[in-house]
Amino acid sequence: MKPIFRRVAVIGKYQVPVAGSASGNSRQIIESIARFIAQQECEPTLETETAASTGLTGYHTLDVDGIGQHCDLCVVVGGDGTMLGVGRKLAAYGTPLVGINQGRLGFITDIPLQGYQDVLTPILHGDYEEDVRPLMQARVERGGESVFEALALNDVVVNRGSTSGMVELRVEVDGVFVSNQRADGLIVASPTGSTAYALSAGGPMLHPSIPGWVLVPIAPHTLSNRPIVLSDATEIAIEVAGGRDISANFDMQSLASLQHGDRVLVRRSAHRVCFLHPRGWSFFATLRRKLRWNEGGS
Amino acid sequence: MKPIFRRVAVIGKYQVPVAGSASGNSRQIIESIARFIAQQECEPTLETETAASTGLTGYHTLDVDGIGQHCDLCVVVGGDGTMLGVGRKLAAYGTPLVGINQGRLGFITDIPLQGYQDVLTPILHGDYEEDVRPLMQARVERGGESVFEALALNDVVVNRGSTSGMVELRVEVDGVFVSNQRADGLIVASPTGSTAYALSAGGPMLHPSIPGWVLVPIAPHTLSNRPIVLSDATEIAIEVAGGRDISANFDMQSLASLQHGDRVLVRRSAHRVCFLHPRGWSFFATLRRKLRWNEGGS
Amino acid sequence: MKPIFRRVAVIGKYQVPVAGSASGNSRQIIESIARFIAQQECEPTLETETAASTGLTGYHTLDVDGIGQHCDLCVVVGGDGTMLGVGRKLAAYGTPLVGINQGRLGFITDIPLQGYQDVLTPILHGDYEEDVRPLMQARVERGGESVFEALALNDVVVNRGSTSGMVELRVEVDGVFVSNQRADGLIVASPTGSTAYALSAGGPMLHPSIPGWVLVPIAPHTLSNRPIVLSDATEIAIEVAGGRDISANFDMQSLASLQHGDRVLVRRSAHRVCFLHPRGWSFFATLRRKLRWNEGGS
Amino acid sequence: MKPIFRRVAVIGKYQVPVAGSASGNSRQIIESIARFIAQQECEPTLETETAASTGLTGYHTLDVDGIGQHCDLCVVVGGDGTMLGVGRKLAAYGTPLVGINQGRLGFITDIPLQGYQDVLTPILHGDYEEDVRPLMQARVERGGESVFEALALNDVVVNRGSTSGMVELRVEVDGVFVSNQRADGLIVASPTGSTAYALSAGGPMLHPSIPGWVLVPIAPHTLSNRPIVLSDATEIAIEVAGGRDISANFDMQSLASLQHGDRVLVRRSAHRVCFLHPRGWSFFATLRRKLRWNEGGS
Repeated sequence: MKPIFRRVAVIGKYQVPVAGSASGNSRQIIESIARFIAQQECEPTLETETAASTGLTGYHTLDVDGIGQHCDLCVVVGGDGTMLGVGRKLAAYGTPLVGINQGRLGFITDIPLQGYQDVLTPILHGDYEEDVRPLMQARVERGGESVFEALALNDVVVNRGSTSGMVELRVEVDGVFVSNQRADGLIVASPTGSTAYALSAGGPMLHPSIPGWVLVPIAPHTLSNRPIVLSDATEIAIEVAGGRDISANFDMQSLASLQHGDRVLVRRSAHRVCFLHPRGWSFFATLRRKLRWNEGGS
Repeated sequence: MKPIFRRVAVIGKYQVPVAGSASGNSRQIIESIARFIAQQECEPTLETETAASTGLTGYHTLDVDGIGQHCDLCVVVGGDGTMLGVGRKLAAYGTPLVGINQGRLGFITDIPLQGYQDVLTPILHGDYEEDVRPLMQARVERGGESVFEALALNDVVVNRGSTSGMVELRVEVDGVFVSNQRADGLIVASPTGSTAYALSAGGPMLHPSIPGWVLVPIAPHTLSNRPIVLSDATEIAIEVAGGRDISANFDMQSLASLQHGDRVLVRRSAHRVCFLHPRGWSFFATLRRKLRWNEGGS
Repeated sequence: MKPIFRRVAVIGKYQVPVAGSASGNSRQIIESIARFIAQQECEPTLETETAASTGLTGYHTLDVDGIGQHCDLCVVVGGDGTMLGVGRKLAAYGTPLVGINQGRLGFITDIPLQGYQDVLTPILHGDYEEDVRPLMQARVERGGESVFEALALNDVVVNRGSTSGMVELRVEVDGVFVSNQRADGLIVASPTGSTAYALSAGGPMLHPSIPGWVLVPIAPHTLSNRPIVLSDATEIAIEVAGGRDISANFDMQSLASLQHGDRVLVRRSAHRVCFLHPRGWSFFATLRRKLRWNEGGS
Repeated sequence: MKPIFRRVAVIGKYQVPVAGSASGNSRQIIESIARFIAQQECEPTLETETAASTGLTGYHTLDVDGIGQHCDLCVVVGGDGTMLGVGRKLAAYGTPLVGINQGRLGFITDIPLQGYQDVLTPILHGDYEEDVRPLMQARVERGGESVFEALALNDVVVNRGSTSGMVELRVEVDGVFVSNQRADGLIVASPTGSTAYALSAGGPMLHPSIPGWVLVPIAPHTLSNRPIVLSDATEIAIEVAGGRDISANFDMQSLASLQHGDRVLVRRSAHRVCFLHPRGWSFFATLRRKLRWNEGGS
């Protein structure tokens, strides 16, 4: 039986090439995976920079957009951060992603490098769990004009600088006034982001099936300013009403400096990201592992 | 122009008839509302016990089921607790409810008695905001058999007694294992219930449009056992795995004693409750008022 | 060099004799420790019930009060719960305690059974860290009379039953009104108890050197009712102002049923409990281990 | 009977002279207070800049240090922030402070401008409640040398910038390792500061009589990194182990940019600040007012 994915791309986390040996190590890993894919009667493609940084030649290469246009599956070697970055870029193309993790398993990269072949084989043949995640489309509006745009898979964060006091934010949902908040900042997190920074700030976890965002204030002045879960079919507006040295962060990977009166607008993107997991994968098992539940702790 | 609701029922909180004067007071209020309804060219009906406790005669009377079958609208005089109780009973009939509140306004009973006529008139003529709330259908299973059933608009709570230590609960969602929890108890709250007891226990608020329940552990032993929002399309099972003197409470109004191995099962009811609010009503304005946001408070 | 403790008592957790083998196992452990103590040129004494439940003969035996009067050190085999129980009883005599733990190490019982000899030897010779903990003296006053008294090393908890709603508690400190609280209950925890139940309910940790108690409300109705640390030189009074089926628990080991108007009074006992730890013991290392800090988690 | 304070200084919050009218207003207030003091047979002294900004002449003037050296009492007109600033400067002299507040009363400035005379008179005659607060002495050490020093009455905060990820901080107490923390930042708060920023970040309140500081992590990565109360007789060291754009803030009024390896050291100052309150003042009454307890809220 043939695999259901014909063209399979491989992307490695090349951003942090640690000295010579690490790069060599990285090369070995990527080459092993590319060969394995070829053995499965799929056509491996290396992402351009992955090929360049590892020095691997003799493979098709495509940039991430090319991968989105031409490949049927993308194997990402790295941690959750790498996966989020690639996921945002591939969302427009609908290309599914699989994550192989060298270190401690993440929330979404859950195939250990050690023995990845046994896990990847059934996935390539169509035996997997699909895990579709909504994406946020965010922009910054200044004087009625859009001055910055970004996608976010985890969260949009508006927060103060290290040297300034609280920010004052005016929150609206679909044009309806929600609240004025004085705090260190405000997080709008997707279900994917709800287990990341938002959890540290006191937010709840959202199951990926929940069509909502959670607004989590960071160190709010008013103690009854608690996290609230809002429909992802709405547009959330966060207006800077006070404070200095304020920024908007998108997945903590891109950012915009904000001025008074700036509005950060968040709504659901038309695109979604599709992660594939091994058969039997469970969101709850991941939570138990990552949050160390059921270990008889403390 | 005629009102769009023809038969309008009136239910008063008769459960706590405080001495003679209160009852007289109550009678006056109910009579005033019934007369007002008649003046609006609607047909007033008094709920049987409301009529009995106030001593009002000369009106059609029906019990709550009869009101569900025959009336087009139900005016409830009381607090949120009264409204929840009537709402659960009318859900099967789809009869909408309006709440008039004598004391401090609640989350869902938001028409002050003082000057209710000005607010009720446009509602009777079809000018209102509809606020539809999901209902939980819960049951207790023992040895494979259902031994208790209840509806809940706010929450289903499994908790320990005052003289016992922690409970141990095994949580499953659609048959998939979620976690073993040691805690004082566990709350499954609807969006409606998310601003009640669940909020006190550290849960987030859920906008009524969110099709989910929030699971909130009460004083959990494991500090990373945090609230989680789950789809209301699933069935949540809470199994008693340990502890003594354990109960399941449904809207804190009915309850079942639990034994080891008992399973409390929660899923969305086919019915929903429909509250009507004055035009311009906003869920967020209610939050601001009830949680005292934006008061400049420390 | 001779050990500095001459008469050394051994108490085993005999309360839960699990079948024959466990008892046999328990016998072996207690006997091993008693022999070891004798080899160190100390005089071993077995607590009466420990001797009876293990069937060990040929040793001096004393009840816990006798141990307090006549022994210089008490070795407790068990978990934190056993240690707390013995600690409360020995407090009046000032006898120091050492804890040997068969299972997972606790906050105060931190000598693993495996290889206990190497750890105990220097302690017997005076090389140890002293860890002195304050004790709460609590009583219940009804109609001006004391109707119940208890010591607590961890906490005094006033809480509701499983079938009842919130309790209403009026809190005073040295006769000065603090607050009326509506909640599931209220915890008064010592530094020792601050890492137990109070932590689950959202309280802070108190270093054992802090001369204070922390008041932690359980699921408080008012969101700004937050934990507060008070001087242990004060008398804290908790008066039952409302609610049903209310109890006061002392270290979750003894309890009193409460009526409206009852006052639970907590002040510092004149006695303190003294635990000995191996040289190099650190309160913070214990926290790191028990709370799984610094594990790169989640 | 003569007042017990002979030389009484007046300091107004002159930092924010809002337009002409406000300044005029301010002048009127300061003049009224100075005259009132003179009528009480005390000798009023104006702080130099207060005199300059209000244009008041004919009074003794002294700078804040001069006030500390020569005056017996200092009346501060402003909010808690102004009071903290003056308090830090007068601590070395032991001069007691009284706070008059134009707007909403604060935690420590609790005499309303309206009718201040009736409240101030008994205080001047020795009828008052003394409220003594500890002060933190903090410094930043770089390469073994002190590069920054500051006093703080509320808190010392080490935190990240708006554009950077988490900081990594290594905490030690008296040279003993406590924990490595990854978070937005870390607050060391005094009892006075425990009701300010630390409370927003999830910390407990500390009664002013507690000889301790509370460490409160801001949005900690590890969920079991909870607030901890430590003795103020210790030296707390916070070392920057990772992160970018990190600052140390002292009462949010002075700040230092931090580099990797920098150590922020906090210990109790030899000086304390003494606030005077009207007879009958209660710390708990202030909490109830500021935190809106007992208002029957939601």
